Amino acid sequence: MKKIAVLPGDGIGPEVMKEAIKVLDAAQEKYSFELEYEYADVGGIAIDNHKTALPQATLELCENSDAVLFGSVGGPKWESLPPDQQPERAALLPLRKHFDLFCNLRPAKVFPSLTKSCPLRPDIVGDGFDILCVRELTSGIYFGTPKGREGQGPDEFAFDTMRYKRSEIERIARMAFDAARLRNKKVTSVDKANVLTTMVLWREVVMEVARDYPDVELNHIYVDNATMQLVRYPQQFDVMLCGNMFGDIVSDEAAMLTGSMGLLASASLNADKFGLYEPAGGSAPDIAGKGIANPIAQILSGAMMLRYSLGQDDAADAIDGAVGATLAKGIVTADLTSDRESAVTTVEMGDAIVAEL
Amino acid sequence: MKKIAVLPGDGIGPEVMKEAIKVLDAAQEKYSFELEYEYADVGGIAIDNHKTALPQATLELCENSDAVLFGSVGGPKWESLPPDQQPERAALLPLRKHFDLFCNLRPAKVFPSLTKSCPLRPDIVGDGFDILCVRELTSGIYFGTPKGREGQGPDEFAFDTMRYKRSEIERIARMAFDAARLRNKKVTSVDKANVLTTMVLWREVVMEVARDYPDVELNHIYVDNATMQLVRYPQQFDVMLCGNMFGDIVSDEAAMLTGSMGLLASASLNADKFGLYEPAGGSAPDIAGKGIANPIAQILSGAMMLRYSLGQDDAADAIDGAVGATLAKGIVTADLTSDRESAVTTVEMGDAIVAEL
Ligand SMILES: CC(C)[C@H](C(=O)O)[C@@H](O)C(=O)O
Ligand SMILES: CC(C)[C@H](C(=O)O)[C@@H](O)C(=O)O
Repeated sequence: MKKIAVLPGDGIGPEVMKEAIKVLDAAQEKYSFELEYEYADVGGIAIDNHKTALPQATLELCENSDAVLFGSVGGPKWESLPPDQQPERAALLPLRKHFDLFCNLRPAKVFPSLTKSCPLRPDIVGDGFDILCVRELTSGIYFGTPKGREGQGPDEFAFDTMRYKRSEIERIARMAFDAARLRNKKVTSVDKANVLTTMVLWREVVMEVARDYPDVELNHIYVDNATMQLVRYPQQFDVMLCGNMFGDIVSDEAAMLTGSMGLLASASLNADKFGLYEPAGGSAPDIAGKGIANPIAQILSGAMMLRYSLGQDDAADAIDGAVGATLAKGIVTADLTSDRESAVTTVEMGDAIVAEL
Repeated sequence: MKKIAVLPGDGIGPEVMKEAIKVLDAAQEKYSFELEYEYADVGGIAIDNHKTALPQATLELCENSDAVLFGSVGGPKWESLPPDQQPERAALLPLRKHFDLFCNLRPAKVFPSLTKSCPLRPDIVGDGFDILCVRELTSGIYFGTPKGREGQGPDEFAFDTMRYKRSEIERIARMAFDAARLRNKKVTSVDKANVLTTMVLWREVVMEVARDYPDVELNHIYVDNATMQLVRYPQQFDVMLCGNMFGDIVSDEAAMLTGSMGLLASASLNADKFGLYEPAGGSAPDIAGKGIANPIAQILSGAMMLRYSLGQDDAADAIDGAVGATLAKGIVTADLTSDRESAVTTVEMGDAIVAEL
């Protein structure tokens, strides 16, 4: 029996989480394993109920669980809070740091039946692309010290520190190369070694790690060029290895290029296989409560959880397959079609995937 | 008589520079002003000839000139140099800092006759888009101190400092709002205020400056979202105001989305209207010397120079118009057509634009 901390959060979070749990329940039955769910508040709803985006009780629940299934947080209600107190930031950054979730996996893949949804020209998208962003998540400029604000008047200044330790770069690089081995054996390391001292070390360490993976091709690309190449010819990428800041930017661009933000899952892992799993998209407050949100990203986040934290690869494969089969049948939610009449609801999509399982 | 430091650099630089000078000569005749050109080495060729990417003599020439017309630098020959000694970096960063070129203007605009070249889907591109990136160019993480490398073994670490002073943010914000006034009266400030202390100050100061421009609409967007929104709906942007690092990334993505990197110029200005003008694209070593490079970005860089540093607005307008008219006639270089037969050469393109002038 494995225990899952379920944190639905705000916006469409609770609706899509319901469908993910439905699918996980079906998978348990079929593959004979048991999950115990315990729910807790996070994000905006936690600010409302407990005056903090990440209550102590929620953190403790996560500590006592084998994995965290996370919905999405934030919305207009909390938008007037200062940017550094926004629910998303105030929930996610401490969770990442507390559990040392240094390895963020963000697949950005075009589903074969959905190439038409890609914002890129059909002759560029072709049969689609399949990129895995491996983003370092607990260091870099997000967490470097010192940072602060000093001085007065026009000379007042603020500062942040970008910082990477050799061991931090090494462990995320290994994750990227390991992942590439199971895919197309190509790692593209994204840096800005022509400007940043941190990135010179980054590149050095990545090259050292590469020596242990002679079967994997390694390329380096500057982050500005990466954002261009993604648009020009996304098929050139397999695994993109990034630091925290550049990974934030590059993975979002890649995700949007697939045209299916509502389908993309992500995993944030530590060295003990504990992980937090969440959709790549946001809380989509504009469609929350309408029953039309796409639950697939949340469902696939559940599948990633089975794979990376719970050792249930067969069940994970089955869910991935059921999602693919459902989409291939032309069953889509409103975000994936211009023909609103034919779109299914959130619940119907969940049911369709369970039926395929 | 104004003096121009002409730094053709490497790769296609010398070829396209020739055409830009040709067009500037024609403009001088027509609008009765006089330019004196003086040439100097920069980048890879300067490393070869003088063992440094930015020789003292080149710097002195720039100091004694009214503006710098810059080609492009770098190429395979110098790629084995450490990333922080690459010609591009080693030439540009010191020039920017030395002349306090804090204001980088990078137009990313789709030319009406060339919407088909955009990598985005035709229904997304529509009639095109017209974005001006205003990038802060002499501060931020590019120039912040301290930076360095310390420690040994797995604990060795490297660090950089992102830093902005209130006055630095204020002056670039004013440039953005001033530019927006002459355009569609909309500024989108790109930051990461939910994570970076520097960007909290950035957002505050931008909001303060906005009070002096009640006629201009101001929005804030996180940089990760900006890279997504550019792909989803680029028309939503008019002026994008960015710090040094984010501006590097966002302006390159926007440029690539126009599908016409070979057409985009840029200006880097200081408070005295002194400026460095260069194409947005690189040295394109793969096509250098073949006479097929597109000279338009260099020609439009010359027009920007006339406008921003030399007060020759009429001549600048005329060059812009001649370029538009030439493209509208379907005269294109190889980068802009799949029908290579019909493409004109670098020299022919220069001649065609002169003929339109
Ligand atoms: C909410 C924010 C702090 C976060 C980040 O920048 O990491 C988000 O954009 C993400 O990518 O998960
Ligand atoms: C060459 C490099 C240092 C430079 C930068 O990052 O500013 C370039 O990418 C640019 O955008 O002009």
